[in-house]
This record gives sequence, structure tokens and C-alpha cells, in this order.
Amino acid sequence: MHFTSETSSDGVCEQLFTLGEIPGVLWTPVGAVGARPLILMGHGGGQHKKAPGIVARARRFVAGCGFAVVAVDVPGHGDRPMDEEYNRIATENQTRVDAGEEPAPLIAGFQALVARQTIPEWQAVLDAVQQLEHVGAGPVGYWGVSLGCGLGVPFVAAEHRVRAAVLGLGGALASAEAAARITVPVEFLLQWDDERVPRAQSLALFEALASPEKTLHANPGKHGEIPAFELDSTLRFFARHLG
Amino acid sequence: MHFTSETSSDGVCEQLFTLGEIPGVLWTPVGAVGARPLILMGHGGGQHKKAPGIVARARRFVAGCGFAVVAVDVPGHGDRPMDEEYNRIATENQTRVDAGEEPAPLIAGFQALVARQTIPEWQAVLDAVQQLEHVGAGPVGYWGVSLGCGLGVPFVAAEHRVRAAVLGLGGALASAEAAARITVPVEFLLQWDDERVPRAQSLALFEALASPEKTLHANPGKHGEIPAFELDSTLRFFARHLG
Repeated sequence: MHFTSETSSDGVCEQLFTLGEIPGVLWTPVGAVGARPLILMGHGGGQHKKAPGIVARARRFVAGCGFAVVAVDVPGHGDRPMDEEYNRIATENQTRVDAGEEPAPLIAGFQALVARQTIPEWQAVLDAVQQLEHVGAGPVGYWGVSLGCGLGVPFVAAEHRVRAAVLGLGGALASAEAAARITVPVEFLLQWDDERVPRAQSLALFEALASPEKTLHANPGKHGEIPAFELDSTLRFFARHLG
Repeated sequence: MHFTSETSSDGVCEQLFTLGEIPGVLWTPVGAVGARPLILMGHGGGQHKKAPGIVARARRFVAGCGFAVVAVDVPGHGDRPMDEEYNRIATENQTRVDAGEEPAPLIAGFQALVARQTIPEWQAVLDAVQQLEHVGAGPVGYWGVSLGCGLGVPFVAAEHRVRAAVLGLGGALASAEAAARITVPVEFLLQWDDERVPRAQSLALFEALASPEKTLHANPGKHGEIPAFELDSTLRFFARHLG
């Protein structure tokens, strides 16, 4: 794990790093000492580790709760090179959608493929980050919607360090089977007028989660329009389960 | 409006009153002076103004936010005499359900009938309570689930003093038409395994609300099993919209 830069503002320290070929960013409270809860955040499709929605939430988790937060670029995103195979499949899928095919099953298949790579990558990131003195081996949470949900559901199902997860904007096609292996508390965000994920598919994914404590928050609006007050709720959710 | 008793504990003053034939209870902060937000709470079927779920929430609204809270007995409930007509209809409905009829439309019809009485009653309660010096004419909120939702939806639709409402455990059959006239922010509680209200009916009632800001909170469990953490959320919802 190599740190390449460190800046801080408003009490939040931001460190860019690479772990092998994975570029990442770690946010911690300025002057943090000792173990603390850690949130791994998965970004959306076409986004990257420092997308505005990731940075804003990460800074709140650090400043509001004293947590550490880590995010890395998904293969083919951000500072990572274009992935030839993923690119070929994405182009092929786009052609099939343009020809009238339903996008949901194609997206699901693609996300399942990428997840086979991101699960071990994200586990390696947790391993490395939890060895840092100012992060330590505290409880872990996961936050990810859209692509971050499609990749997050199989990750949370596989990784037993994760004790609570915020997921959403994703459907059952991608991950119902993995969802049925998740038993930790989940806050699930659904946009009532989501133009990308059919409502019934989202409800089915919430239904599929095996977690005894799971809570669905549905709000009017399109895929990208999660209301600001949900961040307050997310903060309290993580504080309740990891704090 | 006649006050019949006053007690206080843990900083919360509880005053029992009657307004005409309506028995009610008013909770305010001890020593409250001046106008403040007021929450009207509608109790569930077979319950009353001082049912444990009402009292616990009312005390949190007062102690946590400094609000005033008022609850009255629905006709035929609590300290009110049995209502001959309602009783006749309820008995008749039970006979029809025992004979295999769907209960939802019967309950819906019954609640619509009772609402025609409770809307003016609750409006009179707001009139009277808001004239008290320690309550005043501040913003009004409504909280009610189950019967409190069936009666609450037409009330909130009719009463323009209500600026925010927590509703739930109710279906569209009872009140979709009135819901389409509600435009204030709503937090809607749904129990995923509700044995009394079909899930599709609940989702349809949420859908029917015309409020630009509405948020659905769905949790696993039966009709009466709303998780405790939803009260924290309700508190913040009212604080955001009335505070």
C-alpha cells in the first residue's frame, strides 16, 4: 500500500493511495489515533472513487461519526485503465439494448462478472487499511447504490467483516441469490420513479435480503435523485450498528 | 374545554380534558410558555388516547422537541360510550368476514363513515387547544397508523393547518381518493409482513399521496411490530418540518 498524497480540510484527512493496481482514497479524522469503524464505499457506474456523491458522504461519516472511509476505483473506472474485456462486453450489451433487448438482465450479468474481480480486490483493501494505526480492526460498514449495489450485494454476502450495509437503486435480477446470504442490518434506498431499475425489481431485491433487520426507504424521484435527508438517516444507521 | 386533571413527570405535563363529549389528553413541556408546534395523534382500532404506543411517542415528542401533543378517543373507544350504529355495522361486518368476505373493503367503508365524524371533532380539538397560552397557533403535525391512518388521511386532506404527517399500516382501499389531495410531507410506515393490510394496498396508498416529499419506510414484521428506531426517525421528520 503506497500513499501518494495527503491533504486535510475541515477536520478530515484525505490520503490517496495505490494497492497494487488499485487506486484508492482514505478519509479519516485529522489526528485520529486507534481503531475505529470503517466504511467501504462503492461508487456508481461511470463514476469513480472521488465522485461528488462519494466525497460528500465520506466527509460526513468522518466528521459526524469519527469513522474512517475508504473508496477505490472499480475496474475500468476513474484512474484505472480501460479494461478490454469489460469494454467489449459493455459495447456488445449496448448494441443489444439498441436492438430492443431488455437492459436489466444484461446489466445484471455484467455486474456479476465484475463482482468476481471486485470482491477479492475490496477484501484486500480492507486487509491493508485495517492494518493502519489510525484505522485499525474496528467494525466495517458498506455503502453502495446502483453499480455500488450490484457489486456490493455479493461483496457483503461474502465478507463477514461487514456488519451493516446501505444498498439501493438495484434490482433482484443482479443479485437475489447473493442477497439471500446477507444477514446483517441493511438500509435499502429505492427511488420510486427510477427510470433505470424497475420498481418491482427493487422491491424484490429488498424482499430477497435475509437480514432480520432491514429497512426500505423509498422516495419519489429518479435514479439519481436520492433526497439529502437520507444522508442523515444513513449516518444514524451506521452509528447505531457500528458506533 | 374542561380540564379534569393535571400531572407531570420527567419534564412532561399531562392534562386530561373534555371538549363537549370528546375526552382528550394534552401533553406539553412542564413550564411551557408561548406558541409551539402541535402534534395531533390518532390511535389504532380498539385502542384509546392513552394507549402505550401513543403515550410513549407523545412523551418523546414533548421531551425531545418541546412540542405539544394532543390525542382524543375515537367514537366508541376509550372513555366514550359505545356507539350503537358503529357497533351494529362492526358486528355485521364481522359476520360477513366470518362468512368468507374480504375484510379490507368492509374496514375501508367503516373507516370512511367514522372519518365523517372525526374530521370535524379533531378540527374542534385543534381550535380549542391552539387557544391555550402554552400551545398557541404554531405549525401542526399529524401522527396516526392503522385506524389512525384510515381516519388520518381524510383529516390531513381536509385540514390545512397540518403541515406534515406520519401515516402507515393502512391501504389504498380506504383512502386513495383523500390521499390524492394530500400535498404536505408524509413519512409512511409499512410493515412488510402485515397480516391485516395487503402489501400491495399499502404501496398503492403511498403511491396515491400527492405530496412532492413523501418517504416510505418499510420494515420486516407484522402489523403491530414497527421497530423502535422508527420513532427516532419520526422525531427528526417532525423536527425538520415543524421545528
